[in-house]
Amino acid sequence: MAKPKLLMAVAAKWAGLASAALDNAEVVIHGRDAYHAEDIDYVLSFTPPPGLIASLPNLKCAFSLGAGVDGFLSDPTYPKHVPLVRFVDRSLSAEMAQSVLMHVLMHHRRQRFFAEAQAAKQWRQQTLTRLTEDTRVGFLGLGAIGSFTAPLLIALGFAVSSWTAHRKDLPGLKSFAGDDELTAFLGQTDLLVCLLSLTRKTVGLLNAARFAALPQGAVVINVARGAHLIEADLVAALDSGHLAGAVLDVFQQEPLSPQSPLWDHPKVTITPHIAAVSQPQAVLDFVRHGIVTIEGGAMPATVVDIATAY
Amino acid sequence: MAKPKLLMAVAAKWAGLASAALDNAEVVIHGRDAYHAEDIDYVLSFTPPPGLIASLPNLKCAFSLGAGVDGFLSDPTYPKHVPLVRFVDRSLSAEMAQSVLMHVLMHHRRQRFFAEAQAAKQWRQQTLTRLTEDTRVGFLGLGAIGSFTAPLLIALGFAVSSWTAHRKDLPGLKSFAGDDELTAFLGQTDLLVCLLSLTRKTVGLLNAARFAALPQGAVVINVARGAHLIEADLVAALDSGHLAGAVLDVFQQEPLSPQSPLWDHPKVTITPHIAAVSQPQAVLDFVRHGIVTIEGGAMPATVVDIATAY
Repeated sequence: MAKPKLLMAVAAKWAGLASAALDNAEVVIHGRDAYHAEDIDYVLSFTPPPGLIASLPNLKCAFSLGAGVDGFLSDPTYPKHVPLVRFVDRSLSAEMAQSVLMHVLMHHRRQRFFAEAQAAKQWRQQTLTRLTEDTRVGFLGLGAIGSFTAPLLIALGFAVSSWTAHRKDLPGLKSFAGDDELTAFLGQTDLLVCLLSLTRKTVGLLNAARFAALPQGAVVINVARGAHLIEADLVAALDSGHLAGAVLDVFQQEPLSPQSPLWDHPKVTITPHIAAVSQPQAVLDFVRHGIVTIEGGAMPATVVDIATAY
Repeated sequence: MAKPKLLMAVAAKWAGLASAALDNAEVVIHGRDAYHAEDIDYVLSFTPPPGLIASLPNLKCAFSLGAGVDGFLSDPTYPKHVPLVRFVDRSLSAEMAQSVLMHVLMHHRRQRFFAEAQAAKQWRQQTLTRLTEDTRVGFLGLGAIGSFTAPLLIALGFAVSSWTAHRKDLPGLKSFAGDDELTAFLGQTDLLVCLLSLTRKTVGLLNAARFAALPQGAVVINVARGAHLIEADLVAALDSGHLAGAVLDVFQQEPLSPQSPLWDHPKVTITPHIAAVSQPQAVLDFVRHGIVTIEGGAMPATVVDIATAY
């Protein structure tokens, strides 16, 4: 029996790895290999070219190489009957947890203050601004990655809460749920961590009104999607003195323009969308297993509910 | 019955808190209150003036307000029959774990590289130098604080080991023990975290020979005591290119002299002995409970074995 065909629309560096790792599929590289659209069984991508998925009449499944699927579903031509499976694994959750912990700790432990003291060659022995137990970390969204990260912050002594569509039951976590509880959640959050998926409901959620609902001196950490956050509103909230800082890994436009006022804003930490990078080997293993599952007549557990996902 | 007398030889800021928190002792402040040496039942300090402990003939117990007791035992006049109890609690362990995690993650996730990219307004999207699972964190010493910290790094996906006097049995931890295994331990450690207590055996342990035993590109994090590390040897190992970085919270002399070459060494991160600060309220609660225990005829669990502690 011929192997199923997998079309990869990904960065060039992945192509070399794929054939070796995917022994149960024939790998076709978008933009390099010729193919007949009707022959393609699977797609692997993160942000496929608009119209690509709709052009493949016999597609059994599309795989996202990230935890988010907005790169697929923001294309209005995406055919809703095609199952969409997102990549979630322990290594990706652990990477994001590392980034979130690092930035939470750098703010909590005043690392910027101590770096400035070092630059001035001064021994400035100051204590924490707030006790850890009084420092409230709030997660906007608590899926696989947040559920991995939150218990580590709870173990480190922080007061941790989350805001999600449905109430969460996690030991030590204060759960807020639904639109009615968003303002209350924000009002008790010192360090806000955005891990939402990007959907029509969450686009632009981090705006002036939401920043105003945070306590004076709060810090915003966005490691989800740039489109969650209105950058001009953030700058205004920082400049007014209401917010004490922001960490941004994602932006309305990427790469971030050299003209952006965010780069040298004294309260902003910027990283170039690297908070959690999918490891090619882990993704290809995941896809190989996914193809086995689907060819066996089932569907991977991380298949997306397309009706609500965007 | 008269309350026992507690002599506090601590920073001035503690004095005000103590009387309220310690309702089962009469608090005497060293350098402020007059007292008769024979009346003192307990001492609370971190680095008592040399000779002070020996001058108190009826002392029942000395409390260290930190996890280390070298501030007591480096005084040769310390009377070895006086029990010495060190402060260990969850808040102190969590604070040190926060500092260790933050510095491990800042190195692992190349935060300095990204900070420089931000300063240059450049989108430099680079991945990790090493996969997390291939990044080996080694703990020199694994007492209460290390045993709290190591599992968190294991959960984050790091390869974690320890070197201790006696072999440790902790899930996911590779344990090295005894002098014979120190070199092997160092040889497989990319990020070395020193959490040793300071004793005659560990003074100067982090020297040129030990740095040479680390792999090329290793990073040294010392959050224990300055006397563990020979600073000139460290600078030489950094300048030769063998070590990639160092994080120092403690120093041979504190405050660190403005003339020290460490301040502006491009590979060195300095913090002013703040990696874990004992919270006065937590310490005073601990001492209050300790006094109850001792007055009841027992001894707190964290009493030090003075024969081996220094």
